[in-house]
Amino acid sequence: MTATDPLKALRDEVRAANVALATRGLARFTFGNASAVDRERGLVVIKPSGVPYDALTSDDLVVTDMEGSVVAGTLRPSSDLPTHLELYRAFPSIGGVVHTHSHYATAWAQAEREIPCLGTTHADYFHGAVPVTPRLTDAEVETDYECNTGRAIARRFDGLDPLRMPAVLVAGHASFCWAPTVSKAVEVAAILEDVAHMAYDTLRLNDAAGPVSSALLNKHFNRKHGPGAYYGQPGGRS
Amino acid sequence: MTATDPLKALRDEVRAANVALATRGLARFTFGNASAVDRERGLVVIKPSGVPYDALTSDDLVVTDMEGSVVAGTLRPSSDLPTHLELYRAFPSIGGVVHTHSHYATAWAQAEREIPCLGTTHADYFHGAVPVTPRLTDAEVETDYECNTGRAIARRFDGLDPLRMPAVLVAGHASFCWAPTVSKAVEVAAILEDVAHMAYDTLRLNDAAGPVSSALLNKHFNRKHGPGAYYGQPGGRS
Amino acid sequence: MTATDPLKALRDEVRAANVALATRGLARFTFGNASAVDRERGLVVIKPSGVPYDALTSDDLVVTDMEGSVVAGTLRPSSDLPTHLELYRAFPSIGGVVHTHSHYATAWAQAEREIPCLGTTHADYFHGAVPVTPRLTDAEVETDYECNTGRAIARRFDGLDPLRMPAVLVAGHASFCWAPTVSKAVEVAAILEDVAHMAYDTLRLNDAAGPVSSALLNKHFNRKHGPGAYYGQPGGRS
Amino acid sequence: MTATDPLKALRDEVRAANVALATRGLARFTFGNASAVDRERGLVVIKPSGVPYDALTSDDLVVTDMEGSVVAGTLRPSSDLPTHLELYRAFPSIGGVVHTHSHYATAWAQAEREIPCLGTTHADYFHGAVPVTPRLTDAEVETDYECNTGRAIARRFDGLDPLRMPAVLVAGHASFCWAPTVSKAVEVAAILEDVAHMAYDTLRLNDAAGPVSSALLNKHFNRKHGPGAYYGQPGGRS
Repeated sequence: MTATDPLKALRDEVRAANVALATRGLARFTFGNASAVDRERGLVVIKPSGVPYDALTSDDLVVTDMEGSVVAGTLRPSSDLPTHLELYRAFPSIGGVVHTHSHYATAWAQAEREIPCLGTTHADYFHGAVPVTPRLTDAEVETDYECNTGRAIARRFDGLDPLRMPAVLVAGHASFCWAPTVSKAVEVAAILEDVAHMAYDTLRLNDAAGPVSSALLNKHFNRKHGPGAYYGQPGGRS
Repeated sequence: MTATDPLKALRDEVRAANVALATRGLARFTFGNASAVDRERGLVVIKPSGVPYDALTSDDLVVTDMEGSVVAGTLRPSSDLPTHLELYRAFPSIGGVVHTHSHYATAWAQAEREIPCLGTTHADYFHGAVPVTPRLTDAEVETDYECNTGRAIARRFDGLDPLRMPAVLVAGHASFCWAPTVSKAVEVAAILEDVAHMAYDTLRLNDAAGPVSSALLNKHFNRKHGPGAYYGQPGGRS
Repeated sequence: MTATDPLKALRDEVRAANVALATRGLARFTFGNASAVDRERGLVVIKPSGVPYDALTSDDLVVTDMEGSVVAGTLRPSSDLPTHLELYRAFPSIGGVVHTHSHYATAWAQAEREIPCLGTTHADYFHGAVPVTPRLTDAEVETDYECNTGRAIARRFDGLDPLRMPAVLVAGHASFCWAPTVSKAVEVAAILEDVAHMAYDTLRLNDAAGPVSSALLNKHFNRKHGPGAYYGQPGGRS
Repeated sequence: MTATDPLKALRDEVRAANVALATRGLARFTFGNASAVDRERGLVVIKPSGVPYDALTSDDLVVTDMEGSVVAGTLRPSSDLPTHLELYRAFPSIGGVVHTHSHYATAWAQAEREIPCLGTTHADYFHGAVPVTPRLTDAEVETDYECNTGRAIARRFDGLDPLRMPAVLVAGHASFCWAPTVSKAVEVAAILEDVAHMAYDTLRLNDAAGPVSSALLNKHFNRKHGPGAYYGQPGGRS
């Protein structure tokens, strides 16, 4: 790496994102990875496979092209790289992807249930129920498994805006989250875990608990994300 | 702010209360806010919207009049300000309001269930079941949403003494707590979360668990709060 | 307090026990208290009411006689003192009592269910199901409430050996634990909470889960406590 | 111990493994123990009974032969030693054994349910459902209890490869884990607890949740452990 590495800022952000997965309790052991894409250069920066978060340096990160060929780095990329690449191809508006086995989101994924929007915490970040993919077929598992995982997500999002619904549950596996930047994608993953936990306990208290009204969903989502957003501070400091 | 700011003590207390929401685990991310009222001056001090707790200074706080017009501060006030103002108008005996999305209290609010008084921990602080509001109508959500949230709470408290029942669950949203001071309101929010958690697990063990008797409710509530209170130390040190 | 205070060692142990309730997560806020008895002198050392654990000094502790009259100390004793005194009277073999609202033990008490012996962790410390008292009558609550709490425990233990069953759940309230010393009573309270938590989750997985066999119960209890105990190190270092 | 103690490295690894049980939250109080075997010398190094983890030194460890006779050390070995010895005899491919009462694994053991493979986190480490033993008979409990515990595990593993299924639940008791080294066995115990926790919450969300397909199970297990493994870094740095 020379001092003029054009990907330096992105590398640093990807490294910080991966470290945050561990420090925020979203990834235990090595169960999770974060990547970012440089759309102009057609390059993806991703965590190397199986390296502990606390030992990760920016130089350990792997850089690949959009087909997954390594263009920089000496380590093997995350085995989930093909899923990340499929998401970057399917969702042109996103810049970062985060995969974790965070506890409650994974429980919903294993239960093969979407997370209903039971309250305003959820509505602040996700416009409706967080979807779950169908199971992959045996053929999809046996050949190009990680790639097919990404394709199943893309199919499930037919008709959905990935910026209004920045997360998915993969049946029998765990969650993937995304955002315009990888830093924001980590925040989505943290909120997803929180929302998954609250929805879990809400259903224990009332298994017939229904989603909030469309009016309340739109009110809260748009209060933070719509054109007339009035949450936080205009132009930053939020 | 000059050294003679008459609201300095109140600002410091409001700042400390907001910071305590985070350090006590009651508010994750920026999900929560605390305010206090100076009844004599007709002024309210409240957290600015979307500012992280650990970066909050007393000067960041926003001061408004009782109608919500900003009279000091350069940041936008919490988007929940109109709810706080409604509570100050409806409940003349209170001096501080705390809003959090603390985990278990929010689960009960999302489940649209009141928290029954299942034990003496609850009875020490809340005189009976913690009430839940009905859902807002679409019209109430679409116009003056935050104000209507406060009005729904006030209607729900028709006939209740807010100092004997210092908390409410807003359906599909979360809790609001209050007390004579904002510091005490933070303590109420902490106890509410604890009580909500214990009631949750109690019902998992016995879904027919009933409330304590009126005799036990009165005994414990009055042991701490009645005219013949004998818990703690007389005149302080408790 | 002079340097020759004959209760100094006991005071220090009681103070350490009360502090441990907080640091071990057994008592949140001021929900808990520990005491010890000096049988020879007929004196009880107990936490003062409502004083936070982290501010507690040995001199803050209150010393009373066996009828609860204060013989040393300037603060008001714990409001639960009469319950402790009843236990010391009913169970001559015990030297310390601990009362906490620890989370899971309290949930079982609020659910008015005894904790069945579902595994060897439980059998290592409690010889059978941890019992729960019946509810107090209104008359028992309204007059001499704390004393009647102790009497209800003593009645429930008719035929039970308090050293083989060193804990009880008081219906709608929480737990009391005891042991030959107050330090050991804190350990019992910690184990009780752990066992209560495991039994809770076991029943979620299998609501028909049955108690261990008498053979296994006796094996484990006696392995640690019987005359032929072979757990730990003989004569200490355990 | 002389400087030329041939077991020094193994002692240090066993000590570190026992300490890790406590620091990783797998063993509360003194509920857990780890051992390793030196197959060439026919010696086992194990934790002494009832000694707290934070006070444990390498010299405290007990060395026995394969029949359990102490050949070095002044303390009594863990009372579970005979179970460890049975496992070393039954499973020649293993080098370390870990026993803990970690919370969720113990709940499954007490519920006498195997842990189904509900997702890829599980499939990465365990090839199928984690088995549970039947209850011991009264006769097995009353005579040679700890030895019979090991025999019950060995019988349950008839036809199973202990390296593809490195853990078991003992009915009404807790878990035992193993691996080629004791350090790896600690990791298995940590993953087991995590998987047990996720399976627990998955079944709360969907009590009909089924295991992953054989294709997905084989894909994930072999991705990490099979001859064509492509997870992590070849030759280390994982």
